[in-house]
Amino acid sequence: MTALSPLAPATFPSLPVLAGVRLAGHECGIRYVGRPDLLMVELAEGTAVAGVFTRSLTCSAPVDWCKQAVAKGRARALVVNSGNANAFTGSAGLASVERTVASAAELVGCRKSEVFIASTGTIGVPLPDEKITGQLGAVRGKLVTDGWGAAARAIMTTDTFPKGATRTALIDGRPVTINGIAKGAGMIAPDMATMLAFVFTDAALPAGVLQTLLSKGVGKSFNCITVDGDTSTSDTLLLFATGQARHARIEDAKDKRLADFKAKLNDLLIDLAQQVVKDGEGASKFVEITVTGAAGASAARRIGLAIANSPLVKTAIAGEDANWGRIVMAVGKAGEKADRDRLSISIGGVEVARDGQVVPGYDEAPVTRHMKGMDIVIAVDVGVGRGKARVWTCDLTHTYIDINGSYRT
Amino acid sequence: MTALSPLAPATFPSLPVLAGVRLAGHECGIRYVGRPDLLMVELAEGTAVAGVFTRSLTCSAPVDWCKQAVAKGRARALVVNSGNANAFTGSAGLASVERTVASAAELVGCRKSEVFIASTGTIGVPLPDEKITGQLGAVRGKLVTDGWGAAARAIMTTDTFPKGATRTALIDGRPVTINGIAKGAGMIAPDMATMLAFVFTDAALPAGVLQTLLSKGVGKSFNCITVDGDTSTSDTLLLFATGQARHARIEDAKDKRLADFKAKLNDLLIDLAQQVVKDGEGASKFVEITVTGAAGASAARRIGLAIANSPLVKTAIAGEDANWGRIVMAVGKAGEKADRDRLSISIGGVEVARDGQVVPGYDEAPVTRHMKGMDIVIAVDVGVGRGKARVWTCDLTHTYIDINGSYRT
Repeated sequence: MTALSPLAPATFPSLPVLAGVRLAGHECGIRYVGRPDLLMVELAEGTAVAGVFTRSLTCSAPVDWCKQAVAKGRARALVVNSGNANAFTGSAGLASVERTVASAAELVGCRKSEVFIASTGTIGVPLPDEKITGQLGAVRGKLVTDGWGAAARAIMTTDTFPKGATRTALIDGRPVTINGIAKGAGMIAPDMATMLAFVFTDAALPAGVLQTLLSKGVGKSFNCITVDGDTSTSDTLLLFATGQARHARIEDAKDKRLADFKAKLNDLLIDLAQQVVKDGEGASKFVEITVTGAAGASAARRIGLAIANSPLVKTAIAGEDANWGRIVMAVGKAGEKADRDRLSISIGGVEVARDGQVVPGYDEAPVTRHMKGMDIVIAVDVGVGRGKARVWTCDLTHTYIDINGSYRT
Repeated sequence: MTALSPLAPATFPSLPVLAGVRLAGHECGIRYVGRPDLLMVELAEGTAVAGVFTRSLTCSAPVDWCKQAVAKGRARALVVNSGNANAFTGSAGLASVERTVASAAELVGCRKSEVFIASTGTIGVPLPDEKITGQLGAVRGKLVTDGWGAAARAIMTTDTFPKGATRTALIDGRPVTINGIAKGAGMIAPDMATMLAFVFTDAALPAGVLQTLLSKGVGKSFNCITVDGDTSTSDTLLLFATGQARHARIEDAKDKRLADFKAKLNDLLIDLAQQVVKDGEGASKFVEITVTGAAGASAARRIGLAIANSPLVKTAIAGEDANWGRIVMAVGKAGEKADRDRLSISIGGVEVARDGQVVPGYDEAPVTRHMKGMDIVIAVDVGVGRGKARVWTCDLTHTYIDINGSYRT
């Protein structure tokens, strides 16, 4: 067991009951012993769903399934197992998904396309789906409305803390709740990190509106984090809306009455995404990188991620070294327009480079102090336009090598 | 001083005298004490030149200079310093280059555009070019025809061994020599790795032909290596042809009489490129990744580099773990067409995955033995076409973190 991340929050937040959602974690013995490794969520009739998925071209069988199902826009059940990713398992993997879906659909009494599946853990090992289907009845008997903490724990792999967040928003003057759980860039030998996040709201919003809000929100949250630049076969983010809240139904994502909901949803997505980074393998520092002056927002994001993914930048941060030369290098390799001779860089609020040169005689003392802290703030202006972005990452430490370089067997 | 790379060759090769090239290393005290940090090469009149440079958008002042000068195609002198990269130094950096160029041109009696400059080392610190210009006369007095080893050592930064290679080729039945030196992915606190390579031949080839051959050769050598995926501001590869060999002049890169020269040049470039990887920071294993079955050669190369740059793959190799699941992940993130269900992977010649699934009951013993060696061979077929590529990298070890995470001061 890996030690608790030094960046972990003090406690798991208190997630309120959310009308139309019942959930439970369960031990089904897929890989782990003595801990829950199965999550089941049952959703009220009329629940709408939206999703975003890994861009990996070698995505897992569950991702293939969810991509198809989410297009229909309705959800009644979510089944998630940890311990086996059901990825790179060929036709056997697809058959496993189909059996699990059929079993859950029968139990809940819904269409197969209303059942969502996610798996995280070992790759390339056939999923023993009978361990899931054999336990679905039992776990359904345990469903409760306040099982959020247990749910967050059931989807953990090598996460060192469960991840959750909640927000309350107003739609047309009526309160709605948004609850989310996530698992992060943990690692299951012999496999890769997987990010799963499930967000639930009682808002009454159709799938198309949800999809628009989610796709937009993910662009400034989950798509702005990185631990090591590697892309899981299984990344899945689903947003379910049970429609139980008592506000006027809204059919247009541009409706002004959604402003507060959008803000709170985005805030919750950022919160969950940051928790994933804070549980990054071996992380000892949380790093926020703001890029301004880029040709556009996506150029800014790409520059930010080039900095955030640079092993040289990340090891310098681990070493508490305000090594802005490596930031210049990372800007240069991003492939996006930047004006070398107008580039400026601030670390911890102190401008260390301006107009493409070091600021002569800048005070190193506050910068050095900042680098010794756990929250590192870097700002870069690339001097060509008005595009901006914020991305988050963690440092690259010996513990990352320890975790990922250990023998598989 | 870092310990000698375990992957270092036993000795520096014996590079023969090459008509039209005289060279010397010299101590000018830019940063290092008690070791040469200046290389001067004087080239015979009529020397043609070609070059390829970093794609970084924050490239150094010397790179800016060389890009312009190489377009004229003639060379008489090369001046290289280690210890200071003259990168991110603004207009002061450009002025430094201009003073150095003017000084060398006057000394040699040539046009400024015939002087080539490279700098490697600390970034963001103004280059004390007076230390170079003040010593150019002295170093010119030391020029010899057999100074190859000294030249290779003068351009080292944190390289643990000097890098050189030589080949003999036949052009139209006449022998020509190709000598090359390089410095690798070393690290100068507070800065980034820089790759410099200088290749010399006595062949009589015009600049246009050289450029075609070099651009092509680099695509299968220096552009197929990676240590950490970071891109230097200063990467420079120059090819000089003194024209002293006695073969018929050849004006067309497609001329069949160049077949052997092309082959030997490419072989030398691969040799130098592999030496750079073998001196990768913290490298304990040399890794060759062959990708076949891709949509095209560049798709294959991109997939290969995605595998080679993956921290998860590299840490697994450091841990001697034949973790093919991470290879699947890296293929998926490359963004190039791949058929998950036709993917196959071999490690050390043993097929571990076929048709998108683990090979049932494959013999792990020879794979485990292979992973314990220093030369790791990975082959991936992505099952969609006939494109292929070979790339080289090293593993990611604790020593990489030690080298790059250490305090700058």
